[in-house]
Amino acid sequence: MSYPKLPSRAENFSEWYNQLVLRAELADYAPVRGCMVVRPYGWALWENIQKALDARFKATGHQNAAFPLLIPLSFFEKEKEHVEGFSPELAIVTHGGGKKLEEPLAVRPTSETIIGYMWSKWIRSYRDLPQLLNQWGNVVRWELRTKLFLRTLEFYWQEGHTAHATREEAEEETMRMLRVYEDFAVNEAAIPVIPGRKSESEKFAGAVTTYTIEAMMGDTKALQAGTSHFLGQNFAKAFDITFLDRDNQLKYVWTTSWGLSTRFIGAIIMVHGDDQGLVLPPRLAPIQSVIVPIWRNEEQRSRVLEVAQQVQSALQPHIRVHLDDRDHVTPGFKFNDWELRGVPVRIEIGPRDVEQGVVTLARRDMPGKPGKKTVPMDGLPQVIGPLLDEIHTNMLRKATEFRDAHIFEPETYDEFREVVGHGWAYVWWCGSPECEARIKEDTKATNRVIPLEQPGGEGRCIYCGAPARLKAIFAKAY
Amino acid sequence: MSYPKLPSRAENFSEWYNQLVLRAELADYAPVRGCMVVRPYGWALWENIQKALDARFKATGHQNAAFPLLIPLSFFEKEKEHVEGFSPELAIVTHGGGKKLEEPLAVRPTSETIIGYMWSKWIRSYRDLPQLLNQWGNVVRWELRTKLFLRTLEFYWQEGHTAHATREEAEEETMRMLRVYEDFAVNEAAIPVIPGRKSESEKFAGAVTTYTIEAMMGDTKALQAGTSHFLGQNFAKAFDITFLDRDNQLKYVWTTSWGLSTRFIGAIIMVHGDDQGLVLPPRLAPIQSVIVPIWRNEEQRSRVLEVAQQVQSALQPHIRVHLDDRDHVTPGFKFNDWELRGVPVRIEIGPRDVEQGVVTLARRDMPGKPGKKTVPMDGLPQVIGPLLDEIHTNMLRKATEFRDAHIFEPETYDEFREVVGHGWAYVWWCGSPECEARIKEDTKATNRVIPLEQPGGEGRCIYCGAPARLKAIFAKAY
Repeated sequence: MSYPKLPSRAENFSEWYNQLVLRAELADYAPVRGCMVVRPYGWALWENIQKALDARFKATGHQNAAFPLLIPLSFFEKEKEHVEGFSPELAIVTHGGGKKLEEPLAVRPTSETIIGYMWSKWIRSYRDLPQLLNQWGNVVRWELRTKLFLRTLEFYWQEGHTAHATREEAEEETMRMLRVYEDFAVNEAAIPVIPGRKSESEKFAGAVTTYTIEAMMGDTKALQAGTSHFLGQNFAKAFDITFLDRDNQLKYVWTTSWGLSTRFIGAIIMVHGDDQGLVLPPRLAPIQSVIVPIWRNEEQRSRVLEVAQQVQSALQPHIRVHLDDRDHVTPGFKFNDWELRGVPVRIEIGPRDVEQGVVTLARRDMPGKPGKKTVPMDGLPQVIGPLLDEIHTNMLRKATEFRDAHIFEPETYDEFREVVGHGWAYVWWCGSPECEARIKEDTKATNRVIPLEQPGGEGRCIYCGAPARLKAIFAKAY
Repeated sequence: MSYPKLPSRAENFSEWYNQLVLRAELADYAPVRGCMVVRPYGWALWENIQKALDARFKATGHQNAAFPLLIPLSFFEKEKEHVEGFSPELAIVTHGGGKKLEEPLAVRPTSETIIGYMWSKWIRSYRDLPQLLNQWGNVVRWELRTKLFLRTLEFYWQEGHTAHATREEAEEETMRMLRVYEDFAVNEAAIPVIPGRKSESEKFAGAVTTYTIEAMMGDTKALQAGTSHFLGQNFAKAFDITFLDRDNQLKYVWTTSWGLSTRFIGAIIMVHGDDQGLVLPPRLAPIQSVIVPIWRNEEQRSRVLEVAQQVQSALQPHIRVHLDDRDHVTPGFKFNDWELRGVPVRIEIGPRDVEQGVVTLARRDMPGKPGKKTVPMDGLPQVIGPLLDEIHTNMLRKATEFRDAHIFEPETYDEFREVVGHGWAYVWWCGSPECEARIKEDTKATNRVIPLEQPGGEGRCIYCGAPARLKAIFAKAY
């Protein structure tokens, strides 16, 4: 049984991605166009993402709840920009229980409207604020061009929704959650991100301001990996969400929403993966270490397997470990298989290792000899934790170096057009939507993010040459 | 601010239930008829149910995955009984992205069909078996008569789906998961259940055999609290799920499915609740213990609060504890409020307690003086764990005694008609669907469960008097 190769990233990044998702059994195509099945290995990755985020949401005072999937169509019409943004993407339920419904229902594409409606019933006084809610669930958006994890008709996500007594509090919350996403991306997924603001034309339909964490994929395209929206009083006014304040005045609340989806799995694949397959960040990997026992005959087999099981038991309290005891494939096949699946550390145990009381560790992030070392079996649990941390740090360093090497600061528009073919352009921008629109038409690069961290001073807009006080990143994007 | 009373259970059980769900903020009515919003307190309870079940599913070798919400309508027609059972309840998506769809899509009411379709692609050889999958998600069934948690258009559940090489393995799996549900109900929710088989007329549409755990509510009605189905080769044949066995023969797989839903929250409310409100089982309660500080003036307030915070910090590593430091409501109001919400243990701390280094514990399962005791603050973390266990045991004992006192063994059909008005009838039944149907028509009591544990021997069918070898439980049910 030989192990088929993936297309290389350089050759065809898109096809490398599609085949990798299928072959690593992260997901599969569902019978309905644009829908996906998330397979156990992919879902286990998502569960680890959920745990890491959920702990951060709870630590910042949020509680989970569940709002309904089905929303009256009329709700979308209450917020003008929201309806314009979302109606073209809605899936509509027209029949239920064998009868035509009086009012058609939308399958939720996002839940601002239904949560707004409930808040208008629940919120009476300043004592009912803030409302700090989050929901883990599925949403449906009728997308035309789809790709597994990156853009699917149905996807899984969390959507945070909060309501506050003052503008300042809501703005603080928006930034707090942006920073939570940044912290998660960097410290759990080893993905460097640039936190910043979206331009008017790229913001969420219904938001006053949208913030993003923007990440660079392995083909240098940008991906919006999480967003946090300051919604002002737009939804409060649309759904009449008022409260009696301490000063006895009836006021509208200020709301926010923020979300991160299974799209993030696409980012993990495309930031870290290589021509051998996935390279999963150790803190999120479903299997952090796989034990591959090696034997040539039946006598060796039972001895090696026994020791392999002991190693597994010793590691289990510390890490997510798997023993690959399949006997119908060769160790070489297993090596390739677990490399494809991106397991951070492989532990090889052969008959000679058993005799000498050692194992060989192989790092997924450092293929070949430099990533291998032989260590004593005793004390392995104490070695493996720091090794996983080292792998995390190395992956973050590599991804940061790659990104920084592909961010350019073109000085002319000609240079700009050239660099957005193979990287990001970090440039002065006058702030006008017209310049953005023309750049997009001309180069397919869009305004990805206006970084929070700004150099200050003034320059000239890369497109029109007018005075500019903001620097923005333009790039092609997923 | 006074605390409004609930209707009593004796007076109007149904209204007691409805008001309690709303007032304890477990759930609320959504704008779409029959849909619900699960509020944070209710969702936290569901999350604890999820954790307890998920650990058991993983310990028995299952992995989670996610299959799509939208299923082509034609899939339902592939299994004859399945389509008859489910088509009247489907919600249908006819439009997406502004266009009429070529084939309408069903919002999943359950996922046997879509999982069967994917298995037919994934399963090739005996090496691909067993498939041991579970999915946490939402489903929609267009019910006419709805009630919060018990029967809602959209509900949340887990659905396990497994495929096996042999009939024996699939039957074993069906029973294993039934026992997992039984263990969960008894040891986590303190709900005694009777595991058994459903009759032909009560089984799942498409199953060969359906097993249930049946529980008695506080009004003596029965509730099906979890089900496990042996599906035989029905779905394997409908979706052409075959595998090449060790003997080189192409065979159909054998499948099972099993589910437990947010309906179980209804069971927890109705089994344990009393006229003061919820009584939550300690192992699932979102808040296991609430600290209520008591003060009369500002000086007392700061001293008591400081100590209350210390107690909270000492307990936090051991249990889910909440400090109620609201200052706009009285301690009496708080007592009622946390009783309504069913928190198992209240910890009262007043100025004299602070001086003496003690706290007063009040048990929710034992209202009034018998459930109160004063204990030293030091060592509280060591006292509270065993106390929660004691409460669990007491709740299970009370629920079992109540149930057993309301299971009757009528000897004549006249007696039968009388007892199903205020309890369960445990009777000989000849096995004929006609007797079941006539009993239902006549008394509204249905065949709830044919207990696994049978007395043996033979009797006379309670309805027709024919020889009977099975004893079954008939009751009115939710």
